[in-house]
Amino acid sequence: MDIEKVNSMDFGEFVDVFGNVVERCPLIAAAVRSQCPFSDLEDLEQHFFAFTDALPQSGQEGVLRCHPDLAGRELQRGELSAESQREQSAAGLTSLGAAERLWLAELNAQYRARFGFPFVPAARLSDRAAVPSERVRRLHCPPAQELSTTLGEVKKIGRRRLADLLGSHAAEP
Amino acid sequence: MDIEKVNSMDFGEFVDVFGNVVERCPLIAAAVRSQCPFSDLEDLEQHFFAFTDALPQSGQEGVLRCHPDLAGRELQRGELSAESQREQSAAGLTSLGAAERLWLAELNAQYRARFGFPFVPAARLSDRAAVPSERVRRLHCPPAQELSTTLGEVKKIGRRRLADLLGSHAAEP
Repeated sequence: MDIEKVNSMDFGEFVDVFGNVVERCPLIAAAVRSQCPFSDLEDLEQHFFAFTDALPQSGQEGVLRCHPDLAGRELQRGELSAESQREQSAAGLTSLGAAERLWLAELNAQYRARFGFPFVPAARLSDRAAVPSERVRRLHCPPAQELSTTLGEVKKIGRRRLADLLGSHAAEP
Repeated sequence: MDIEKVNSMDFGEFVDVFGNVVERCPLIAAAVRSQCPFSDLEDLEQHFFAFTDALPQSGQEGVLRCHPDLAGRELQRGELSAESQREQSAAGLTSLGAAERLWLAELNAQYRARFGFPFVPAARLSDRAAVPSERVRRLHCPPAQELSTTLGEVKKIGRRRLADLLGSHAAEP
């Protein structure tokens, strides 16, 4: 898909296609549509990031709260978005043993209780083994730093999802 | 459900319950959760409205673009949210004849082309006959006025949805 195709979409089609670039936040894609036309993938991406960065802190926390837990209840219930399902699967999180799943559930609960949002790594970029150790490390970070770190992960995820949709190679962060 | 129950919810439960107070914008409910605890229904409602009012114009347009057309493709495809399905049904929009549906589709397209977002009346408060005439009137409004009018409709819808969830009578606007 090239940028001319993107620029030719009506807003309904645009939200259908880009509505989950930021997980469960079609509002952000729908807002970005106001900046159409876009010059290229990077321009489109920057509008997603700029909108998210300009949200008040509550809105940024809200973005994070729309993300699923890793190997959590949405996965168990089959309620993950298609994108999250692919990403968690690629990170090996859909084929955990019971003990590993329980341990992750405990880490999820600790993290959510401390920060008020779920742990969001750019799962497709991480390997299954790195996820728990990274989380233990991040559990000890100050909340403001953790919010900023996690928004950075949301951007990495968004960059990959956009690149998948446009058929480009995402620049690795 | 009383406000103590709302205040006792973790953020996952809060977003599950209130995520569609603003249609397809769980981000807004998830952001409002940052203001917990709430003193009463009105306080909770005001946080939803304040967040929406504080969005930049693109974000407010984004909120509107997350709404379905009336008697539109989401209804035809069975993709309406449960709340929208009930509201469009109560307004008689799920039982239109073919000619009426075509006429509405034409009005929908004109409206979307002019304003860049769908026509959003507080459908449950309107009767089926009033919808087309109201739309023809609004098609001639200035865009800035129409954005403001439509956000007012989104608030009416949100007020009713919140009152339904909390089991209260919504004050009629």
